[in-house]
Amino acid sequence: MTIIQKEIHLPVFSRGFHLITTLITDELPEIRKIKTGNMQVFIKHTSASICINENADSTVREDLEAFMNRLIPENLPYFKHNYEGSDDMPAHIKASFFGHNVQIPITDGQLNLGTWQGIYLGEHRNYGGSRTLVVTLMGQS
Amino acid sequence: MTIIQKEIHLPVFSRGFHLITTLITDELPEIRKIKTGNMQVFIKHTSASICINENADSTVREDLEAFMNRLIPENLPYFKHNYEGSDDMPAHIKASFFGHNVQIPITDGQLNLGTWQGIYLGEHRNYGGSRTLVVTLMGQS
Amino acid sequence: MTIIQKEIHLPVFSRGFHLITTLITDELPEIRKIKTGNMQVFIKHTSASICINENADSTVREDLEAFMNRLIPENLPYFKHNYEGSDDMPAHIKASFFGHNVQIPITDGQLNLGTWQGIYLGEHRNYGGSRTLVVTLMGQS
Repeated sequence: MTIIQKEIHLPVFSRGFHLITTLITDELPEIRKIKTGNMQVFIKHTSASICINENADSTVREDLEAFMNRLIPENLPYFKHNYEGSDDMPAHIKASFFGHNVQIPITDGQLNLGTWQGIYLGEHRNYGGSRTLVVTLMGQS
Repeated sequence: MTIIQKEIHLPVFSRGFHLITTLITDELPEIRKIKTGNMQVFIKHTSASICINENADSTVREDLEAFMNRLIPENLPYFKHNYEGSDDMPAHIKASFFGHNVQIPITDGQLNLGTWQGIYLGEHRNYGGSRTLVVTLMGQS
Repeated sequence: MTIIQKEIHLPVFSRGFHLITTLITDELPEIRKIKTGNMQVFIKHTSASICINENADSTVREDLEAFMNRLIPENLPYFKHNYEGSDDMPAHIKASFFGHNVQIPITDGQLNLGTWQGIYLGEHRNYGGSRTLVVTLMGQS
């Protein structure tokens, strides 16, 4: 049984959804050593999220951001948590909708993703800064 | 430590939510060999999802589908990703809301689900075709 | 490889979101024995949820509850699943939005959470009663 764990510090991304699959796999050549197992990606923040979605067409990311900004608008009159800016409370809600971790099977030394799947960072703040991930690989060599 | 991994090809389901617990457990008699551990179910698509919900009353699945279709309607005027049909972009959004994997504890050779819990497939396309799952069991015999 | 699994019976909480990190870690001193691994928290219900969000300001929990009650209102005219009360079907939808498990990395005998992260119970029923969690630790000593 092999367990490998690394922290990854992402570059600063603008508000919206971003494809980060290769940013993660480039830091983890050890995936190749695992015959059967999984990779867990965890994001250490409460106003950014990790999810899986379509990896080819950037309009999916744009439409997702446009939809979420309408579904969870800023400046709702009943929001009390607003001293960090009008983008803060919506960011907390979005983060819990999409979630803080994904777990992806590893098969024969590769992530066993579907053809069209990629890992998305959801950056829900206007100026979120660099985000930190903890990636854990577990499996058999 | 035991790790067992299998791909399961589901039958074609209509758009909506479907209870698939026994479709998974029937393919995995090895669950009985694991005293303490967990089962991870991962779906290899970006317009279908996996979640847990109520396993007894089919109106829960019907109401969930009815609610989601109103929350994330087709043909929103600002959607750009629409060349695969009006059901495509809403399907991507729903898939990331519900997520692509669930992880369920295994205790004494059985899934340790609550009495009313079942595993749902969310089929978010009108004609999604057969969906593929990767199921990974990890634990001690 | 170490695997430890425990059921935790939470005290009864009112409808809304509640910070339960220390309720979990107090029951699991074994976290200190794990150098590298993860903790999975699973909730055995379909009208309550587990997610991660902000651990400091209680107005985040209040705003989240206020937002969710408006997004998924009771008594929608097309709901069929209503014999357990008007709060029941909205509770099922909320539970699948936030999800039934979180997985958190363990590093050097501690949960590797971000500074502002805590584990939330989402109690989506008016009178949900005591909720049961299954917590599984996996890792290397």
